[in-house]
Amino acid sequence: MRLATLNDSTPDGRLIVVSPDGAHHAYAPVATLQQALEKWPARHDEMAAIRDFPEALDESRLRAPLPRAWQWLDGSTYPSHGELMAKAYGREATWSPIPLMYQRLSDRFIDPRGDVPLPDEAHGIDFEGEFGVLTQKVPMGIDADAAAGRIALLVQINDWSLRHLAAREMKTGFGWIHAKPASSMAPFAITPDELGSNWKDGRVTLALEVEWNGRPFGHPNGAAMGFSFPELIAHAATTRELPAGTVIGSGTVSNPDFREVGSTCIAERRGIEMVDEGAARTDYMKFGDRVRMSARTADGRRPFGTIDQRVVASSK
Amino acid sequence: MRLATLNDSTPDGRLIVVSPDGAHHAYAPVATLQQALEKWPARHDEMAAIRDFPEALDESRLRAPLPRAWQWLDGSTYPSHGELMAKAYGREATWSPIPLMYQRLSDRFIDPRGDVPLPDEAHGIDFEGEFGVLTQKVPMGIDADAAAGRIALLVQINDWSLRHLAAREMKTGFGWIHAKPASSMAPFAITPDELGSNWKDGRVTLALEVEWNGRPFGHPNGAAMGFSFPELIAHAATTRELPAGTVIGSGTVSNPDFREVGSTCIAERRGIEMVDEGAARTDYMKFGDRVRMSARTADGRRPFGTIDQRVVASSK
Repeated sequence: MRLATLNDSTPDGRLIVVSPDGAHHAYAPVATLQQALEKWPARHDEMAAIRDFPEALDESRLRAPLPRAWQWLDGSTYPSHGELMAKAYGREATWSPIPLMYQRLSDRFIDPRGDVPLPDEAHGIDFEGEFGVLTQKVPMGIDADAAAGRIALLVQINDWSLRHLAAREMKTGFGWIHAKPASSMAPFAITPDELGSNWKDGRVTLALEVEWNGRPFGHPNGAAMGFSFPELIAHAATTRELPAGTVIGSGTVSNPDFREVGSTCIAERRGIEMVDEGAARTDYMKFGDRVRMSARTADGRRPFGTIDQRVVASSK
Repeated sequence: MRLATLNDSTPDGRLIVVSPDGAHHAYAPVATLQQALEKWPARHDEMAAIRDFPEALDESRLRAPLPRAWQWLDGSTYPSHGELMAKAYGREATWSPIPLMYQRLSDRFIDPRGDVPLPDEAHGIDFEGEFGVLTQKVPMGIDADAAAGRIALLVQINDWSLRHLAAREMKTGFGWIHAKPASSMAPFAITPDELGSNWKDGRVTLALEVEWNGRPFGHPNGAAMGFSFPELIAHAATTRELPAGTVIGSGTVSNPDFREVGSTCIAERRGIEMVDEGAARTDYMKFGDRVRMSARTADGRRPFGTIDQRVVASSK
């Protein structure tokens, strides 16, 4: 089952169920995805039983499937990315048995085709292609086995970053505020069964294809996560309960053969250049630049739909 | 004007306006504080015009005035606290012209008299007494002068911390997840005019009285913030818009004469012991311990009411 949210000018939009062929939709029996996640799996079962999709789907009206969330916790789980960045910046690369995770602003996810307003090109504007999960309510202290059963839906995320602001904030130990503006979400939130065997070991094992200004930039596979989504949920819930609709992210998708398959963020390409050539030569994004991201199955389907966005100057 | 939220078994509770004598209330013309903040100052003006308070106020039914928020950003703005902790832990203490701030979980604020469920005494359970503001919607890139006009209400916060989990997370640079469970909020959110001359230079210039298990622990004054609340809002909004109802915190209140006035968190007392005596001898909280916090005016009023809470073991 694939769910999406129509723009109806309300903060949370109108939840719809998308037909199997992707061309039509039905209105969900509940107004918003947040409300559906609060009564999962009952709402799932009602929506999965829908067989009549009377409305034509207009993708240009789709918002982020969850336009805002009560929590958004992003991991950094791809070892090849962490090791490369440590090498590029002269930090010690140590594998940790504890996931890296940070608290992310959750009051908005930018629409998949929405412009991304940012204040300054000099901040080092970068995209980050990721996969994520939306959870049901999760009790404090859950273990990873039980956490697998709390995953309601899978999503695809563009986790915007302002790289030149990141190092200073990271050094404080307090994490990022300026370096992490609002994220974006691809239009379809999907149940894991939509992926068949490409939902495996709590990971999305699809290539995430990224284009920057129309040119292929990378297509690494999501399978290489050093921790599974259930492990990330258990980590997140160690000392807190998670509300329904919590978003948990994988961090930027990366593969060990990044020189061949490319990257899902500019920072990683710059890291490769620093290691291989002694200096980064690829610049970050400029206003007007576009990024396009979508995960693709072996038979050519794009289950999460496509993020296709332009960076623009914010006006004060 | 003082606002509070009655427990009516809904997630956001029922907003009420408290009478000047604190003994009665009227139902607000809008159901929740979040809704009021989204239409501020119009809702403020309607509520401030109320003269009839027909209901007896039952403080035991009061929740956090904002039971959940779309963003909660906490500062660490008291120089005496930062300098002491750096000295105690052998870090370099450097004054920064940029505020320290981190993204905090915002999906719940624990009720002022609610039990605080935590998984393990060994985590180093600590309270942190703070002041905070609730904002109207704030545009990206606002300056501090304009940010002053976006402050709707003042609040008092207990920012729970698990100290023994904090150092590891801080070293990652990603900020805290395990070390920062849900915070609590005192029952009354108040307009700045309620404080008269004790709202000065964008700071709450009241002593915050803290008792731990019935014994006085500290009563430092909120005035000593190294940055004002408008400066913190401007910092927070540098690369993001802030939604209505954003909570911005001062960090644990601290004064340079902490040896005389005491502290609002156990970590600071332990830091004093480490510096003065070579080792911390005050333990963190145990299950069953209580903490009580309220700011007091010179004439004995407690404008935010009182946080009075017990720490309990969470059940899986």
